[in-house]
Amino acid sequence: MRLLLISNSASPGETYLEKPGADIARHLGDAKGDVVFIPFAGVTMTFDDYVTKVNAALAPHGVKVRGIHTFDEPLRAIAEAKAIMIGGGNTFRLLKMMQESGIINAIRERVKAGVPYVGWSAGANVACPTICTTNDMPIVEPLSFEALGFVPFQINPHYLDAHPEGHGGETREQRIREYLVANPGVRVVGLREGSRMFYEGGKLTLVGEHTARLFLFGDEPREVAPSEDVNFLLRKP
Amino acid sequence: MRLLLISNSASPGETYLEKPGADIARHLGDAKGDVVFIPFAGVTMTFDDYVTKVNAALAPHGVKVRGIHTFDEPLRAIAEAKAIMIGGGNTFRLLKMMQESGIINAIRERVKAGVPYVGWSAGANVACPTICTTNDMPIVEPLSFEALGFVPFQINPHYLDAHPEGHGGETREQRIREYLVANPGVRVVGLREGSRMFYEGGKLTLVGEHTARLFLFGDEPREVAPSEDVNFLLRKP
Repeated sequence: MRLLLISNSASPGETYLEKPGADIARHLGDAKGDVVFIPFAGVTMTFDDYVTKVNAALAPHGVKVRGIHTFDEPLRAIAEAKAIMIGGGNTFRLLKMMQESGIINAIRERVKAGVPYVGWSAGANVACPTICTTNDMPIVEPLSFEALGFVPFQINPHYLDAHPEGHGGETREQRIREYLVANPGVRVVGLREGSRMFYEGGKLTLVGEHTARLFLFGDEPREVAPSEDVNFLLRKP
Repeated sequence: MRLLLISNSASPGETYLEKPGADIARHLGDAKGDVVFIPFAGVTMTFDDYVTKVNAALAPHGVKVRGIHTFDEPLRAIAEAKAIMIGGGNTFRLLKMMQESGIINAIRERVKAGVPYVGWSAGANVACPTICTTNDMPIVEPLSFEALGFVPFQINPHYLDAHPEGHGGETREQRIREYLVANPGVRVVGLREGSRMFYEGGKLTLVGEHTARLFLFGDEPREVAPSEDVNFLLRKP
């Protein structure tokens, strides 16, 4: 497998996909001019607008995508895809549409066969076993929470330490601790904005200017730096 | 029906259930000394500890609860309950346990027959048609998103305007706007911390020091004040 899992498209002050753009192009390699894009996480914009936005952002890097919704035969489009990219938005809506259209199994098969995969935010979340560590609102009910399962750990994208002042709701860390109680055998990687993970040649690496926060039931959460070996994440805890 | 739906148990600087305590006692009336409490939303504390915490907080108001988990026959306990109270925590876990134990239907029936209901945070969320406007992480997968449906609108508890600075994730309002696109026929009430809603004698009222933020697909979000008539929320938009 060849995976690029990105926490977020852009942080405030950055243009869309500005930070990960060069890495996306490098990761896609020869396939970068012919990518099948899944825009299903986009809710408040049309799929066409989403594709236009992604192409505008990635054109300087020579990346060109086509929306899965524009193919007459979406399953065939996935079967023949040279690369697959899933953008951010609402994870529940994304998963539900992938399930109902049947492309989820086709994507899983193709990526496991070696087709390069790029996902950010919701697109990084669905690369995990389930969507149970999403931050999104459950605006629609998917057929199940089971996702693509490319990696054996869960990613929490947009991981943040800050909490709005004077607010009584749970912090992100409290939410993840609840996840651990309910799912004691699964690791969670809190992937901060600006961070991404590569998997290729059987190796996993963390890239970006931030550490990631690692959670496992029974252990104190700890930080891992981009320079550290994170391949233990590929094994069962 | 007699409902008291509370945004949150306590804001920073307040003791647990300090603000809504007196309203809870008044709402429960003669039943306040004999309340069946559903602690299923509690994940990082035991159900016993949850019950102890609630009783300690509400004892000054003469309110006494017993956890549903301590009854040999939970369905019978609900059938005979004089009042039902559901506390906050993780909404997905709460709904899943209510579904799997079968008490969800029993609670719905009893409350619709007039037994007073009190719920805060997750407990206010499950009084709505679905849990689709929760802020919680989907740490477990419920059998469905369908909830108690005591009111025809959705509550977003802990509604907040603030957004952590420099963070690229969606604001609360953006999340609710996504919900509206996917569910154009349902109103959402953003219930700020410190706010609550009463329903009794066929009338709905908003209580607390804040306005609530009202969302409906196609309309600009707007504020409603506690002094305003909010009974239109009981009708279809």
